Amino acid sequence: MNEQSKQISITRLTRDSKPTTKSDQIALEEPLEIRVRGQAIAVTMRTPGHDEELAAGFLITEGILKNRADIIEIAPCRAEGNVAGNILNVFLSPEVPLDLDRLTRHVFSASSCGLCGKASIETIHQQFAPIEKKQRLELPLETILELPKKLRVAQSTFDATGGLHGAALFDPTGQRLIAREDIGRHNAVDKVIGHAFLNQIPLTDQILCVSGRASFEIMQKALAARIPTIVAVSAPSSLAVEFARESNQTLYGFVRENSANCYT
Amino acid sequence: MNEQSKQISITRLTRDSKPTTKSDQIALEEPLEIRVRGQAIAVTMRTPGHDEELAAGFLITEGILKNRADIIEIAPCRAEGNVAGNILNVFLSPEVPLDLDRLTRHVFSASSCGLCGKASIETIHQQFAPIEKKQRLELPLETILELPKKLRVAQSTFDATGGLHGAALFDPTGQRLIAREDIGRHNAVDKVIGHAFLNQIPLTDQILCVSGRASFEIMQKALAARIPTIVAVSAPSSLAVEFARESNQTLYGFVRENSANCYT
Repeated sequence: MNEQSKQISITRLTRDSKPTTKSDQIALEEPLEIRVRGQAIAVTMRTPGHDEELAAGFLITEGILKNRADIIEIAPCRAEGNVAGNILNVFLSPEVPLDLDRLTRHVFSASSCGLCGKASIETIHQQFAPIEKKQRLELPLETILELPKKLRVAQSTFDATGGLHGAALFDPTGQRLIAREDIGRHNAVDKVIGHAFLNQIPLTDQILCVSGRASFEIMQKALAARIPTIVAVSAPSSLAVEFARESNQTLYGFVRENSANCYT
Repeated sequence: MNEQSKQISITRLTRDSKPTTKSDQIALEEPLEIRVRGQAIAVTMRTPGHDEELAAGFLITEGILKNRADIIEIAPCRAEGNVAGNILNVFLSPEVPLDLDRLTRHVFSASSCGLCGKASIETIHQQFAPIEKKQRLELPLETILELPKKLRVAQSTFDATGGLHGAALFDPTGQRLIAREDIGRHNAVDKVIGHAFLNQIPLTDQILCVSGRASFEIMQKALAARIPTIVAVSAPSSLAVEFARESNQTLYGFVRENSANCYT
C-alpha cells in the first residue's frame, strides 16, 4: 500500500505562548490521469493508493464498463513522463464499445422542465435503472447504527491527518467488506466500488457507508453499482433524497450511536 | 434571496423507541448550467441562490474573465425550457477573447516529471502568477482565531440542515465582507469571489475563510482572485500546502478558538 500522508514542518500558534515549529502529518493529494485505449479520459485529484480500484470504480460509475471481463489490465503508464506514477492505463477488451466523446461532453437534459433535479435523475435512469423493489434490504436498526463506528476504525489516515473522507461496503449483517480513504469523497466511493468490481463481488445486497454527507453524485455512483442502501454519517442534500426515492434506494443520514434519520 | 433549504418528511429512528415521522429541513441541491455566448460551458450541482455570483466567480477562477467590464449582464435564460431557473446566460463584451475549447479540455501538464503535484502548480502559475511577496499580510493571531466563529454565525442554512459548506471574505481587521453557503465547497468560494468581482472589491488584502478543508482547488481559486491569506477550519492537503508555499500565500488550518497551524 502507498503512503497516504506525509510529514511536514509547520508553525503551531496558540494564544498564550510563542509560536513553535513542529512536525505534522498531512493527507496526500496528487493528480491521477486515467487513460483508456491510450486516450486520457479524466484527471482527478486523489490520495495515492488503490489507483486501479479508483480507475475501475470511475469507469463503472460513469457507465463505461459493465463486466469484469471488459478489463484486461490496469497498470501504470510505462512512458518516461510517468516518473511520479500518476498516469494509469486501462486496457480494455477490444470488443468493449467506447464512446469517448460522451465522457468529455457535459450532460444536458431535455425534459419538459428544462434543467432541474428531476431531469438530472431521469438522465441517470436512462443509463442505470432504479433498484428493483424486491431488492431493497430490511435491516435491523442496530446494524445501521453501528456502521459509522466500524467505518471510523478503518480510517487510519484520517486519524493521523484529519484530512480524508472515508467510504466502506458492509454486508447485511454489518460485516465490513472493504474500506477506503481519499481526499475526495467521490474517489473514496469509486475505490470501494472498483474493489468490489475487480474482485467480482456483487453489491446488490450490500450497504455503502460514507463518512460525510450524501449528495446527488454519491447516490448516482451507488445506483451504478446496484447498491440498494446508503448510510451517511452526516446530512443528505435534497437531490440525494429525491434520487434515493425515485431509485428505490434506502437512504439513512445523521447516523449516530443511538439514532438515525431515514429519508426514504 | 432564494430559499436554500426545504422541508421534507422523514422517519426518525432511535434505539429505545418506535420510529416516528417528523418534518426536517434539508439543504437544496439543484443543477446550474452556465452559458457564455449561448454555449453551455459548465453544469454544476449547487445550492440555488446568488447564481450570478457563482457564475462570475467560476469564470474568474477558471481564468476566462479578468475585468468587471468584460461582463455586460448575467441573467436567467429566457427560453421556455428554463422553468426551473437553472440556466444562466453570461453576456460578455464582444471584445473579450474566449477560448471555449480550453474550458472543455482537460488540463494536462508537460513538465519533466510528467503528471505530478508540482506540474499541476506550474500549470496554474502559467495562468495566475504567484502573489507578490510584499503583498503578504502580517496579521495578529487574535484576528485569525476569530474568523471561524464569524463565518459560523453567517451559516444560517447549515444551522438548519447541517448540510452546507461556508466561505467568507474578511478584511485585515477581521471584519466580514461577505459570506456564502453552498452544497459544494468550491461553489461557496466561487460565490464570495464572484460577489467581490461584481462589486469591484479588490481582494489583494483580504482573507478567505472556508468551513472545511483546504484542497488544491480552493488554493487555486484564491490565487486566481489574488487572495494572499487562506484560513481553513479543518485540515489542508499536501498539495494545498505546496501550492500555498509556491504561490507566496499564507495558509492556516485547524483554526480553533485558542490555536491554529500555519503551513507556510
